[in-house]
Amino acid sequence: MQKERDKSLPHVVIVGAGFGGLVAATALARAPVRITIIDRNNHHLFQPLLYQVATAGLSPADIAAPVRHIIGRERNVSVLLGAVTGVDPASKAVLVGDRRLSYDWLILATGATHAYPKPAWSAVAPGLKSIEDATAIRAKILLAFEHAEASNDPVEQRRLMTFVIVGGGPTGVEMAGAIAEIAKRALAREFKNIDPRSARILLVEGAERLLTAFPPELSDYAARTLRRLGVDVRLGDFAATIDEDGIELAGERIPAATVIWAAGVKASPAADWLGAEADRAGRVQVTDRLTAPSHPDIFVVGDTAAVYDANGNLVPGIAPAAKQMGKHAAETIKARLYGSAEPGPFRYRHMGNLATIGRSSAVIHYGRLRLRGWLAWMIWGVAHVWFLIGFRNKLVVMADWFWAYHTFKKGMRLITGGDNGPRASSSR
Amino acid sequence: MQKERDKSLPHVVIVGAGFGGLVAATALARAPVRITIIDRNNHHLFQPLLYQVATAGLSPADIAAPVRHIIGRERNVSVLLGAVTGVDPASKAVLVGDRRLSYDWLILATGATHAYPKPAWSAVAPGLKSIEDATAIRAKILLAFEHAEASNDPVEQRRLMTFVIVGGGPTGVEMAGAIAEIAKRALAREFKNIDPRSARILLVEGAERLLTAFPPELSDYAARTLRRLGVDVRLGDFAATIDEDGIELAGERIPAATVIWAAGVKASPAADWLGAEADRAGRVQVTDRLTAPSHPDIFVVGDTAAVYDANGNLVPGIAPAAKQMGKHAAETIKARLYGSAEPGPFRYRHMGNLATIGRSSAVIHYGRLRLRGWLAWMIWGVAHVWFLIGFRNKLVVMADWFWAYHTFKKGMRLITGGDNGPRASSSR
Repeated sequence: MQKERDKSLPHVVIVGAGFGGLVAATALARAPVRITIIDRNNHHLFQPLLYQVATAGLSPADIAAPVRHIIGRERNVSVLLGAVTGVDPASKAVLVGDRRLSYDWLILATGATHAYPKPAWSAVAPGLKSIEDATAIRAKILLAFEHAEASNDPVEQRRLMTFVIVGGGPTGVEMAGAIAEIAKRALAREFKNIDPRSARILLVEGAERLLTAFPPELSDYAARTLRRLGVDVRLGDFAATIDEDGIELAGERIPAATVIWAAGVKASPAADWLGAEADRAGRVQVTDRLTAPSHPDIFVVGDTAAVYDANGNLVPGIAPAAKQMGKHAAETIKARLYGSAEPGPFRYRHMGNLATIGRSSAVIHYGRLRLRGWLAWMIWGVAHVWFLIGFRNKLVVMADWFWAYHTFKKGMRLITGGDNGPRASSSR
Repeated sequence: MQKERDKSLPHVVIVGAGFGGLVAATALARAPVRITIIDRNNHHLFQPLLYQVATAGLSPADIAAPVRHIIGRERNVSVLLGAVTGVDPASKAVLVGDRRLSYDWLILATGATHAYPKPAWSAVAPGLKSIEDATAIRAKILLAFEHAEASNDPVEQRRLMTFVIVGGGPTGVEMAGAIAEIAKRALAREFKNIDPRSARILLVEGAERLLTAFPPELSDYAARTLRRLGVDVRLGDFAATIDEDGIELAGERIPAATVIWAAGVKASPAADWLGAEADRAGRVQVTDRLTAPSHPDIFVVGDTAAVYDANGNLVPGIAPAAKQMGKHAAETIKARLYGSAEPGPFRYRHMGNLATIGRSSAVIHYGRLRLRGWLAWMIWGVAHVWFLIGFRNKLVVMADWFWAYHTFKKGMRLITGGDNGPRASSSR
C-alpha cells in the first residue's frame, strides 16, 4: 500500500498552494528533489475571480481545483493537507499540527488575509479571501433582499437594501459593480413587496480616486461607470465605525445590513515564524534572492514577502507577481542543486493592471496602453479564463459568462451554510 | 416601493418548494388567486441528483435554482423565505417565525427527512437531503483520503479508507457506485503514501436484495455490477451500532471513518401541526382528495402524505408522485374556485423506477420493460437532465457529465465548510 520515494534526494517543502507556491512546485517537478506542498485547503483558488462567486456569477468549483489534481501526479510531488503552525530554522523543520517535517529547502508562499483597523469590524464587515468568505457574502447579499421582501417596515427595508463596500481597489470596484447588476438586473422582476432596483450601493474610498494603481483617467472612468450603474461613489471618505446596524462615515451615519471589507490586507504570520523583520503589513523583508535574511535556504514569495521593483516601489500583491517570485525561487534552488549559474537578484516585470467594473466595462493599464470599455472587458475576460487552471473550468466559466451576458441572469444564487451559517430555518 | 396585489383574491399558501409545492404553484399561477410559497431555503433542489454533489460529480448550483427565479416572476406568486413552525386550522393561519399568514387554501408539501433508529447515529452517519448534507459528505469522503495520505499508521489508514453505506435503495446504490469510482479512477494516481484503489466500500442492506422496489433480476444485476466495481455488498445484514470509529454489523465490527445513512426517512412534522393521524413514518393519512381529514381546505402532498395506489400499496416518495399530487391539489382548488367539475379522487400513475449504479450502468423498470446496462444509463441521464429546472443547469450538467465520462475526472472535489465544518486549519 505504501509507495516509497527516494529519501536520499533533497527535500523541498512549499507552504501554500496559491499562485507562488504552485508555480514553484511546477518549476521543481522532475528536478532531482522530493517536493512536499502543504496547504490548509485541498484546493488552489483562482482569487481574481472570487468576487464572481460572492456575487452569484460563478460556482466555487469553477474557480478552484484540488491541489492534488493539479500537481499530485508528478512523481516527486507530495501534497499534504494541513495547517502549518511554525518553522524551526535551527533544526530545518516545519511544524504541521503535531508533526515535524524536515526540509532542505523551504519556500513560504502563505499569502495574505484581511486587515481591519479595529478587530471587531471583522465580525460585521466580511472580507473576500476564501471560498467560505465568498459563499458567506453571497448568502448575506441574497438574504438582505429576502428579508426586505418579508418586512413591512420601510425603514428596515431601506437598511436591508443598503450595501456598503469599503475600499476602492479592484476588489471593491468589482464588488460594487456586480452588486449593482444583481439589484438592477438579475433580481429586478422577482419580488412583489420590494423593488430591488431601488437598492442603495455605496463604494467608500479614502483616497481622492478609485483604483489608485491605475492612471487617473481610468480611475475617473471607473467612477463614472459605477455612478451610471447607480453606485454612490464616495471618495476621500472613510469608515469611522462599523457595527451590526451599519456604518458611520466621516460625519454621516448610514444604516446598512451589508458592509463588505475590501480596504486592506496583512501578510500571513510567516515573519513571526521566522522571527524576521517585517514591514507594517507584516510582509517579510527578504533579500534580493527572495530569501529570509540569514536563512539562505528559506525563500519567501508572493503576498507575504516585501519585494521592491527597480524604482523602489513595493511589488503589488497580484497573481503575476507571486508567480514570478515562485519561479525565481525554484530556479535559484535548481541552480544551487546543479551548481550552475544562479538567476541572480529578482526583478519584477510588471504585466499591467486589469480591473472589471461591470458588464461590458473594464480598465487595462499596461505601459503606455490605457484601455477602457467593451474591448478592455473582453481582454479582461479572455485573460482570466486563459489563466484559469483546469480545462473543464475554462469551458464552464465561458459557458456561464456567455449565458449570463445574454440573459442578464445570475445562475448561482444559492443561500447555503452550516450550523453557524446564514441559512434560514425549517419548513422542508 | 411597494407593489400591491389584489387583496380581495383568495389566498393559497403553499409550504415547501420541492416538486409537489412547485408544481402546485405553477398550476395555480394565473388563476384568480394570490399565492404565497414558503420555504426555509431560497432554492428548489433537484434531489435525484444530490448524490452527485456528495460525490464531487456536480456543483450545488447545477442542481438547485432559486425558487424566486423559477416562479417569482408570475404576477400572482409571492415567494417567502422562512421557517413554518405550525398551522392554526381554526383561524386558518400559518405560523412563520413571529408572523401569522392567513390562508383560504393551504397546501403542505414539506417533504421528509432522515430517520434514525437511534438519535445518536445522526451525528456520525450523515444522510443526504440538502445541499449542506451533500457538501458535508463530499468533504468527509475527500478528507478521509487526505488524512490517510498524511498518516503513517496502517490500521488508521485502513479505517480512514473504509466507507460504509447503510441502505440498499437507489440512494445507497448510487452512493456506493460513485464512491467506488472516485477511489478506483478519479483519485487513483494522485497520492504517494496510499493507493486509493485499495479503499474498501461496503453497502449494507437489511433485505435479501438491493433495490427492493425493482424486480429481483434487476436487483441481482445491481449487486453484481457493484461487486465488479469492488463494492462489498452485504445483504440481510444491518447496523447494530454506529459510532465515531465505525460500525458494528450483525456480529462483525468494521472500523470505518465514513458511514453514510441511506436507510430510511420520516415525514416532516406536518401531521403534528395539524393534529392529524399519521402512519409509522409520520405521514399524514389524507383523504382521497389529498386533504387532511376534517380540513377540506388543507391539502397534504408529496413525501409527507400517506397515499395509496389502486392495489393498496403506499405511493413511493419519488419526484413524479409528488408532482402528480401537487397538480391534483391545484386542479381541485381551481375546480372549487370556478365551480367546475372536480378531478375526483387522486389516482397515482406509476412512471417507473430508475436507478443508476455507475458509469454506463443503470436499471429501469417500467411496466413490463426491464432495462439494464448502458442503454438504461443513457435513458437515466437524459431523463434526469430533461427534468432539471433551468436551461443553464441542463447545459452545464451535460457538459460536466460529458467531460467526466471521457476523462474519468471528478471536477468538484472541493473541501469547504464553515467554522464547524470539516476544513483543516491554517497555513494560507
